[in-house]
This record gives sequence, structure tokens and C-alpha cells, in this order.
Amino acid sequence: MSPPLTPLAVSLGDPAGIGPEIVAKCWDARRALGLPAFVAVGDPRSLSAVWDGPLAMVTDPREAEAAFEFGLPLIAVPAAGADIPGVPTINGAHCSLDSLELAVGLARSGSCSGVVTGPVAKHQLYAIGFSHPGQTEFVAERCGVSPQNVAMMLAGPTLRAVPVTTHIPLTAVAAGLSAPLIEARGRATLRGLQRNFGIGEPRLAVAGLNPHAGEGGALGREEIEIIQPAIDALRAEGWLVTGPHPADTMFHTAARARYDAALCMYHDQALIPLKALHFEEGVNLTLGLPIVRTAPDHGTAFDIAGEDRADPRAMAAAIRMAASSARVRAAHG
Amino acid sequence: MSPPLTPLAVSLGDPAGIGPEIVAKCWDARRALGLPAFVAVGDPRSLSAVWDGPLAMVTDPREAEAAFEFGLPLIAVPAAGADIPGVPTINGAHCSLDSLELAVGLARSGSCSGVVTGPVAKHQLYAIGFSHPGQTEFVAERCGVSPQNVAMMLAGPTLRAVPVTTHIPLTAVAAGLSAPLIEARGRATLRGLQRNFGIGEPRLAVAGLNPHAGEGGALGREEIEIIQPAIDALRAEGWLVTGPHPADTMFHTAARARYDAALCMYHDQALIPLKALHFEEGVNLTLGLPIVRTAPDHGTAFDIAGEDRADPRAMAAAIRMAASSARVRAAHG
Repeated sequence: MSPPLTPLAVSLGDPAGIGPEIVAKCWDARRALGLPAFVAVGDPRSLSAVWDGPLAMVTDPREAEAAFEFGLPLIAVPAAGADIPGVPTINGAHCSLDSLELAVGLARSGSCSGVVTGPVAKHQLYAIGFSHPGQTEFVAERCGVSPQNVAMMLAGPTLRAVPVTTHIPLTAVAAGLSAPLIEARGRATLRGLQRNFGIGEPRLAVAGLNPHAGEGGALGREEIEIIQPAIDALRAEGWLVTGPHPADTMFHTAARARYDAALCMYHDQALIPLKALHFEEGVNLTLGLPIVRTAPDHGTAFDIAGEDRADPRAMAAAIRMAASSARVRAAHG
Repeated sequence: MSPPLTPLAVSLGDPAGIGPEIVAKCWDARRALGLPAFVAVGDPRSLSAVWDGPLAMVTDPREAEAAFEFGLPLIAVPAAGADIPGVPTINGAHCSLDSLELAVGLARSGSCSGVVTGPVAKHQLYAIGFSHPGQTEFVAERCGVSPQNVAMMLAGPTLRAVPVTTHIPLTAVAAGLSAPLIEARGRATLRGLQRNFGIGEPRLAVAGLNPHAGEGGALGREEIEIIQPAIDALRAEGWLVTGPHPADTMFHTAARARYDAALCMYHDQALIPLKALHFEEGVNLTLGLPIVRTAPDHGTAFDIAGEDRADPRAMAAAIRMAASSARVRAAHG
């Protein structure tokens, strides 16, 4: 038997976004949603502004397990100035970055068994000097892992998809692809399926870039020149990899049953099917890290912050997936 | 009351593909599938090779209505040489082209109320001198309509999607887009929703090209420079048009309820969500023609031809949609 897991750290994200509300709603519905103990990290007033439930202020995650019964355990990272839901501020950006830093540190030290990150406002973070494209790259750097060797997995109940390129213009996608990059993302995905999901012999389906996967070169040559060599290299290592598949015939029910994850060439190729099928419960899981890190696959939604309309299902799914990954990792040492 | 409709013409497509089998299965299950009278057009032996049901040979579609009760009405276009399921031949390509030509002619003359086209083998057609990219462009030319003014709609029970560009490499998509082309496809789509679906004030949702619809220009400028002007032009004509929308948040259930059709910038942007949601029953409907034309959204499937494994649901959906469009057109003159 493995020792009992430490709680998860959940950063609240931007104090003016929906992060505090959905974390509070997760605690409210912790039994119905099947959630394990977690400790929130962020500004207490961002919670009290949108929620009148009980807070359990803690300073050490070890107190969270017992406190979780009676209140939402919180390690306070107070923001300077007031948080007004829907109105992001520079103070709020500092608070969200400090909360992220602390939550990641708790996971790295082992005080927490993983980190779940609430949604942040990238533009506000850039304004205070944050130089990473997003939280994923920040967490990777804090863990000492090169961005090329991590992969962003978007996961729902019946589909896991990993984009090779992410937030770049569509015209930059083909130039951004290379066999070594596809291999690296594929390897991170396959190892991630083993480490986080306990799948011994994971199956990876690789998408083509062009319509009909290029139709033998008639509709584009990236499949022949870049994608197929990457697939061959991964197969030579013994991995179960298929493709390049026409992207439009990869995502129906019968096709999804044939693989454990889809490796996609660009953002929307992965995100369109994931959100078409699982909009309310998509989880962003970072593969390739020494720690467990998940996040709900949505943003700060400033437009509905403070209106009690935010849907906590994606945050709940992110917490459940982090807990499940932490259990798999603990069981496999 | 409008006069009773003439039957639909259904071309069998390539005699060695699954076209004959799925048309025969549609006739077998005509009551369960809710299918109206239709007349098949193609090689009788391609049917008898895979089906032992009754054929009702006719020479005039007017005979089809009465015959439909007792056998599958067929206007014979005999292929030279034998058809072996799964083995496409030049003779079969000639037969599939002659069948298409005749079926389209029956629709153009009014002898049939629309045409449903079975799957053909494009490579075989190219080998006999067919110079159109596909059946859609052939039908457009026979109807005297410029290819720019037709649009290929992929339709399932809860999503209709129209790609602005179709079978070109992904790297050619951005250069293939222009405001006039997006406008033309948008207009064909909006008029097509009125003419074929009877939607008086159709709502069109236009997708962006880049991740997050370009995020205000940070991830690409096509939304600002090409797509938004096309949307503005359509709105100025009084149409209900929204966008450019981030493509990944357009296709979940709640989002789909907000529009009647999605105008997509490239093949997979339209086909990924359509097939993820409606793989077995996708219909290809050509908008902008003086006649009704539909097709099942799949190919010849030579690999399973003759094995009695082909799924007739997409063909049945194509026949039902053609009949429904013909009724709407007849009711509105």
C-alpha cells in the first residue's frame, strides 16, 4: 500500500475572474462531485466577494485534510487593493502570479500531491513582466523542463488530444512542425499516458496536417516529409503509433475507441473536437513534468464573473484528474 | 396545394464501390427509414452482384412511383464488362459518369425532383478525361452556375457546416481566402438555408481562421483584414451574420443552437466537428444550384465493397434531405 496522498493545491487564478467562484462551488459540491481534499491558494477576499461559505484558513497543507470537512481550506495570498469581480487589475495579476508560484512550490516540495491552476489573465500578467506564453510554460520552467519536452493534453471523458503547435497563426503551423518536435510531443504524450493514466501500452493516433492527410501528396507533402518519419521513429522505439490519419475521420465514437490519445498538428485540430464533444468538462493536463499539473480548459470569463453563473464542472474534472494522476504515480513509484 | 413531387434520381456511383449496396439497402428498409419514392440510375449487374432483391426496370421516372412498392426502380446504364465489387475499372468509371450525367439531366428537366449522387472514384474519372475536381463542380457546370457561387454544405442532425476552401493544402488556405469569396459562399449558404430548409431569416456563424480567431491580431490578421469585411458586407445586405468566432468554441451543443449554419475557412474546420458529431449520417448538399443535389458524405469504400457491411444511413439521410429540400422549393415556388 502506498502512503495516503497529500492534498492537491488549487490556485484561484485571477481574483477578478471566475476562478474563486468555481473553486468555492467545487468545495460546496465536494461530495456530489466526488472530490478529494484540496487546499486553495489565493486571495481570501476574492472568495468572500462571491461566496458566503466557510473558509478554513491554513498555513500548512497538512492541516487541509482535517479542515476540508468544515470549510474550504485556504492558504492566503492577499491581493493589494480590493478585487471587483469582472474588473482585472495589476494588483490582481500580482496576486494570481504569487498564488501560482506558491501552489507550484507546494507540489514540487511534495507538500501537495499536485497542482490545479485556476484561470489567469495573460494580458495582465504580461503587463507585470511575466514572460512565458502561459501558465504551462511557467510551470515547466519552475520544474526545470524544456518547453519542447512538455505537452499540453486536453482531456475529456472520451477524448484526449495533444496539439504539437499551439498559439501561433495558422499560416505559421507548417513551418512550426518538424519531425523532432512531433517525436518529442509524441514521446511526452505516450509517457504521460503511462505515468498519469496507468496505461501500460498506450496507443497514439497521429493526425495529418492537410485534408485527407494529404491524399498521397496531392494535397500537401508534410505527411510524407515530416509526420511519417516522426511516426516511424516512435515505432522504432517500440511505441504503438498509427497515422498520419485524415483529421476528419479520427474523432467519431468508433475511431476514438482505437487510441488512447490523438496527436494533433495545430490548436484547433485538437480543440475543435475536444470542445465539440466535451465543452463543459475539458481538462488541460501538462505532460512531461515531474509534478502533476492540471487546469480547467477555459479562461477567466470576466464577462460573467460575480454573477453566480460560472459552471464548476471543468474545475471539478481538473481536480479529479489531478487526484487520479497523483494516485497512479504513487502506485507506480 | 403543390402538385405531387416527381421521384428523386439516385445515381449508383462507381459500380464497384458500395453505392449499389447502400441504395439497395435503402430500398429494402424504405419504410423504416421513411424514404420517398426514388429511381436508381446505374448498372443493373452492379446491384445483382451484391443484392438479390427485386429490380423494377423503368425507362421513365413517371413509372417509378407505382413500381417502388414492388421493386427497386432502375433506369439502366449498363457498364461494359463485368463489375467486381472492390475492383474499380475504366468501364465502371464510364458507367458512373454516364449515370451521373443522366441523373442530373432528369433533375434539370423536372422529370425528377432532385438528384442524389452515389460515391464515385475520382482517380478513375480523371483517367477517362473528367476535368472537374469532383461531382459538385460537374453538376454546377451542367446547371450553368460558376463554381464560386455554389457551396458545399455538410449537414447532420444538429450541425450544418460550409467550408469556404475545400481540397487544398493547409498552407494554401490563407492565400485562397478573400473577402469576395467568403461573401459569395456566405450568400450561397444563406440563400440555400432559405431555399432548401425553408428558414426565413437564416443565421450564419462565421469562423475565424486562427486560434482564438486571431486574438485581436496577435495570432494572425486574416480575421481583421479578410473575414470581418466579408461579414460586414453580408450584414449590410440585411443578413443575420455573426463572427469571426474562435473555431473551437463554435461547435458544442449550446453554441450550435445559436446559428443555422457555420461558415468555415477550410476543409477540416468544417469536417472535423461534423464527422465527430454525425459520422454515420453526414449529408453533402450543394447550395446555389437551380436543382436539388445531395450525396452521402463518404466515399466508394472499395475495401468493404461486396461484403454486405456498408452502412446505408448516410445515403438514406441524403435521400430524405433531397426530398425535404424539393418539398420546400415546391412550396415556395
